[in-house]
Amino acid sequence: MLVGDSLSSLDEFALIQSLNYKKQSNNFHNKLGVIKGIGDDAAVVQTRSGSQLVMTCDTMVETIHFNPYTMLDEDVGYKAMASNLSDIAAMGAIPKYALISLSIPKHYSTFRLKKIYKGLYECANYFEIAVIGGDTTKSPKHLNISITLVGEVESNQALFRSNAKVNDLVFTTGYLGCSAAGLDYLLKVKQKQLMLGQIPMNFLPLVKQHRRPTPQIKAGRILLQSRRCHALNDVSDGLSSEASEICEASNVGFLFDEVKLPIHPQLREYGQLIGKSPLDWIMYGGEDYQLLGTVSKADVVHIQNRFQQEGIPFFIVGEVVAQKGVQMKDAYGNIKKIHKKGYNHFN
Amino acid sequence: MLVGDSLSSLDEFALIQSLNYKKQSNNFHNKLGVIKGIGDDAAVVQTRSGSQLVMTCDTMVETIHFNPYTMLDEDVGYKAMASNLSDIAAMGAIPKYALISLSIPKHYSTFRLKKIYKGLYECANYFEIAVIGGDTTKSPKHLNISITLVGEVESNQALFRSNAKVNDLVFTTGYLGCSAAGLDYLLKVKQKQLMLGQIPMNFLPLVKQHRRPTPQIKAGRILLQSRRCHALNDVSDGLSSEASEICEASNVGFLFDEVKLPIHPQLREYGQLIGKSPLDWIMYGGEDYQLLGTVSKADVVHIQNRFQQEGIPFFIVGEVVAQKGVQMKDAYGNIKKIHKKGYNHFN
Repeated sequence: MLVGDSLSSLDEFALIQSLNYKKQSNNFHNKLGVIKGIGDDAAVVQTRSGSQLVMTCDTMVETIHFNPYTMLDEDVGYKAMASNLSDIAAMGAIPKYALISLSIPKHYSTFRLKKIYKGLYECANYFEIAVIGGDTTKSPKHLNISITLVGEVESNQALFRSNAKVNDLVFTTGYLGCSAAGLDYLLKVKQKQLMLGQIPMNFLPLVKQHRRPTPQIKAGRILLQSRRCHALNDVSDGLSSEASEICEASNVGFLFDEVKLPIHPQLREYGQLIGKSPLDWIMYGGEDYQLLGTVSKADVVHIQNRFQQEGIPFFIVGEVVAQKGVQMKDAYGNIKKIHKKGYNHFN
Repeated sequence: MLVGDSLSSLDEFALIQSLNYKKQSNNFHNKLGVIKGIGDDAAVVQTRSGSQLVMTCDTMVETIHFNPYTMLDEDVGYKAMASNLSDIAAMGAIPKYALISLSIPKHYSTFRLKKIYKGLYECANYFEIAVIGGDTTKSPKHLNISITLVGEVESNQALFRSNAKVNDLVFTTGYLGCSAAGLDYLLKVKQKQLMLGQIPMNFLPLVKQHRRPTPQIKAGRILLQSRRCHALNDVSDGLSSEASEICEASNVGFLFDEVKLPIHPQLREYGQLIGKSPLDWIMYGGEDYQLLGTVSKADVVHIQNRFQQEGIPFFIVGEVVAQKGVQMKDAYGNIKKIHKKGYNHFN
């Protein structure tokens, strides 16, 4: 009914109603313990005894995190939800509730907002998250989406960054660097540095990884339930930056093994096309939302088997050492220090 | 250490550390059940059995909700926290945890950010809220603060908008319209429509109400604990808009009694100075963050006594009627319809 209306002709109440209309059933909310969802001053939910709450929030800002030529509106919504889910995954927790705060420029049509919400709900429904509230305000210029996610975790079982131990093995749950390469590809196309004829269709997986990353909720749960994972982080910035965070919190060092770092075939191919080492994207690119963690050598086979049963990749990429900081051993056995230069929105 | 640094020279981690440094003690967090606060992918907290969770989020955007000439930086932080707390108050709940998401323009110094955080924490500490997480990103132009608050409420006792009953009395917990008049004063001073010589110092209470509103947490708790409050809402927009929300949710009408609406003496005086009826601000001004609710006639004395014991104002301003919509009876007994024209950020 409201499609195509400009924002100024709507009141906030009608807008929120319209964006959330028929997206989630009462049954679905009941199952998740929602007592009161959208439509009062605040939402009310039932918690389960024996569990603790996990909470995180994350913001995406137009021109800083996305642009119309790098992301479709649906992708903006999907990724805003997915990047938040990734933080819940990195605690080993089960995501349950989302609150969405949206600051909307006047020139955005409800048509575009509906597309953003389509993506938001696509992700929320897939991962069974109840959207229970939020706020909608005007923005002077740029779209700003801030999402808070609340999850549940078995009492005192949440996985922190601070428990990595010397001699642990370091693992990731998937390929890294693909999202940053996908973004690079989109920007080069926009700037006409790449002509369409030059671009093999098989770079689309890189673009998909940038636009629709998959939060590793299942992997986080396997790791928590195994009770054998020592430290865990999600790779929202580059691998070097995330590794540094674990090292600093745990007071240890990481020694990555270059030949063990998995390189996605399309990442390698795109690197060759534009003359850049895939390693640059892996270490310093961001937004892949894989998990990076450590586990003792004695437990690694058990965990590897669990990942295999679930069909989730599990790559051992290095080990935890006493020497502080992050280092890389190359194919010839040479070891060099890796600087913490992840994607940082303030640089 | 970081005071005066420009944002571009800091990484996000150092910035967050600096803004939150020594603001709340471990002891304080332990008392509130915080297992893991700022510094991991997500926060972890302990919940209490027998209680439900209450969650809300609210955003303040520079140029939409505040300007340097209407709000000091400390006030921006204070009010962002206070307006969120008001939604928790309107459920009768106890606020406990806050997550702060900040999008920061490059030209903001950490000096200014520290002032914003000073205000945020001033409010959080007064109301005993643990700040347990957040996100800090760059903004292309304007400051954007989004806060999520999580509170606790006795199971199935939260106060909704939807339970007002015909013949209930309608009450508020304080003066209304002062914040909007305070804003009007600040804008007129800025536009030099008022000269400083014209402005009696006693309009400062109006300015204070705009900059540092007090969320009615205590009033909300009294109302919930009385188990006699039927419907409750906070007055973040105008009285007419908030009354309409209760009426629509409860399928009833409100009949306000004009002579019973409390008018703050400074509001009356300012209205006389600029030639505007205080009633305009009361009905259509926003951001006073008082509570508006209904209670049965039989219970009103009991509740009035509880408010008196606590030294909190309690004004009966009308009653609930079967005729839908919001109406006003003036001093001569004439009844007119009140239009739902509260402060709406999309108009």
